[in-house]
Amino acid sequence: MLERYGHGGDWLTARELYGKQGNEGDFIDFSANMNPFGPPACVGELLRRYESFISRYPDPAVRGLRGKLAERHGVPADCLLVGNGAAELIDLLFRELRPKATVLAEPCFIEYREAAAKIGSAVHAVGLKAELDFRLTMDAALDKLKQLRENGLKSGETLWFLGSPNNPTGQTVERTIVEELLRQGETVAMDEAFMDFAADESGLSLLGEAASREKLIVLRSMTKFYAIPGIRLGYMAAEPSLIRRLSELQVPWSVNSLAQLIGEAVLDDAEYAEQTVAWLRTERAWMTEKLQALGLFVFGSAAVNHILFALPEHFGWTSERLQAALGPKGLLIRDASRFIGLDNRYVRIAVRLRPDNEALLEQLRELFEGRGERG
Amino acid sequence: MLERYGHGGDWLTARELYGKQGNEGDFIDFSANMNPFGPPACVGELLRRYESFISRYPDPAVRGLRGKLAERHGVPADCLLVGNGAAELIDLLFRELRPKATVLAEPCFIEYREAAAKIGSAVHAVGLKAELDFRLTMDAALDKLKQLRENGLKSGETLWFLGSPNNPTGQTVERTIVEELLRQGETVAMDEAFMDFAADESGLSLLGEAASREKLIVLRSMTKFYAIPGIRLGYMAAEPSLIRRLSELQVPWSVNSLAQLIGEAVLDDAEYAEQTVAWLRTERAWMTEKLQALGLFVFGSAAVNHILFALPEHFGWTSERLQAALGPKGLLIRDASRFIGLDNRYVRIAVRLRPDNEALLEQLRELFEGRGERG
Repeated sequence: MLERYGHGGDWLTARELYGKQGNEGDFIDFSANMNPFGPPACVGELLRRYESFISRYPDPAVRGLRGKLAERHGVPADCLLVGNGAAELIDLLFRELRPKATVLAEPCFIEYREAAAKIGSAVHAVGLKAELDFRLTMDAALDKLKQLRENGLKSGETLWFLGSPNNPTGQTVERTIVEELLRQGETVAMDEAFMDFAADESGLSLLGEAASREKLIVLRSMTKFYAIPGIRLGYMAAEPSLIRRLSELQVPWSVNSLAQLIGEAVLDDAEYAEQTVAWLRTERAWMTEKLQALGLFVFGSAAVNHILFALPEHFGWTSERLQAALGPKGLLIRDASRFIGLDNRYVRIAVRLRPDNEALLEQLRELFEGRGERG
Repeated sequence: MLERYGHGGDWLTARELYGKQGNEGDFIDFSANMNPFGPPACVGELLRRYESFISRYPDPAVRGLRGKLAERHGVPADCLLVGNGAAELIDLLFRELRPKATVLAEPCFIEYREAAAKIGSAVHAVGLKAELDFRLTMDAALDKLKQLRENGLKSGETLWFLGSPNNPTGQTVERTIVEELLRQGETVAMDEAFMDFAADESGLSLLGEAASREKLIVLRSMTKFYAIPGIRLGYMAAEPSLIRRLSELQVPWSVNSLAQLIGEAVLDDAEYAEQTVAWLRTERAWMTEKLQALGLFVFGSAAVNHILFALPEHFGWTSERLQAALGPKGLLIRDASRFIGLDNRYVRIAVRLRPDNEALLEQLRELFEGRGERG
């Protein structure tokens, strides 16, 4: 399986599995949700200048980037913490808050559960339902809350860790649900790693509020939207005293200087951001139509960069076999059955540029028509 | 003070303090112990090629670099863990071992104490003595061990965290002392961050043994020797079961892909390594002589890349005032009084290239002769 280390985007495992060698163009990667345009032009420019920076330590306080993020989001810089990828921030948050219990709405990013397990927090899952398009409902949240109280968990002992838009389902969490949880004294962490890919970011994001509200935390990733996962970059917003405690827990120079420099530079490229969302929105709609025409069941998503679809049973394909059949053809997809709460009919793919998308559609067509190998 | 965030090499703070603007050549940095030659040529080449890698996730298992390190040190790859700088590995080690007590030989790198504090481990310090050239003696180690037992700390409850060569004193720990500690059931972590800078690395390093011996751990940094602190890179060797537990504790993709690629490339450049040590050895001897001629007391060191010296009392200078006087002249030094166990007469400087070293000597001469400002 491609997800040997729990995630997509693992080229080395792909090469080992599918026997390809180290040439750059050997895979088209639909298994990681990266901006298909690649990094903005400023990244290449920075790489050419970076040799004169690499011999100095990174700014331990990430002052430049925090200042720019503060400006962008209209929050004070001391409400922001930058991390070695959002993965580090998830880990830090669990280690600092040490919640007795953690509520997850599954399927969701596996790292929430891993980080909870590391600190011994009991996970209480809300199972999201395919028939509701995997939306978290107020009823389900209130039911879970009631159940927590019946289990003796008092107000403030539980951390709700919710993706919005959620990976892999693409749904956002309704603001009224978050409000109700906060009103009842729960702590809520919103993972907005894919929020930049939402057409209505400013209307959906809770980041501005996290800076001033106790018990509300918002996490962001810069790696997906700016296509820089290699270098790691994420940030979070919360009230200053929590940010201070988390930053004390963080190891020194956790955020490398190239990530800091790139973070500062890409924020200036508003055009790249606008064009990405506008283009992906159209392409996702086109791709959805084509996948539906193949007979696949495609789920809706607020994040326009990826698609979750289900294989109808009568196709006779599982997600694992589909992944194994596409790999040797140079196409990597995410076997979504590895998300807790999804079965072996689910597949997640990134939305890529048109020629790549057409290549995938063509292969899917062949496989489903029985002309390809059945793995 | 320059060490606002606890360390040297903080250019942004230097700029704030000394009022210089962002031009590249505005400081000569003696405050961080970097290889003065800058990174090997392969680093520049990699930066030019990195744009095609940045859009992919780093290898989560760091397979390529671990393989190369295994080859270099003649140990199995599953005895090695690569980290986001040695700082991450120090933190992981304390969090995994959770020693009831920690023994430090001070002065030493401040992060040992910080990492111990984070997990609530009680620090028992052995005070290294200037009159013994800051060497850890067998007697001092045995005394401390006796004291630990008297305090009720049993065999196996204490972690000895020892720099070798130690920062800032440059002394290595005698093998017989490590052997005795291990024999008595203690756990010993050797921080060999500066070992590459020792003229007799293979004779002094315990890395090869750490792979096969329980309770012996060796940490290494690649940032100083290869002058790449901006990108973060360290590794450690220990027996495989500890490495496995530590790697499970590590956040996913902790080591960015540029660091991995650079790590692989620099290991091939044996010439760079040899020339660095040969050159620094001579230059350190020259610099020592010049500093002594100024009336300073210079300590010996196994690591040829830095110098610890003491200001004689009759000079009327403290390390803090010396730092403040040199900063506006574009020269950054380390006020070593911030190391626990050293007072305000101690200064640490990196050994740099001749023109830089001459510039520092010239300024020191002026200041000590009373021609410079006295801060």
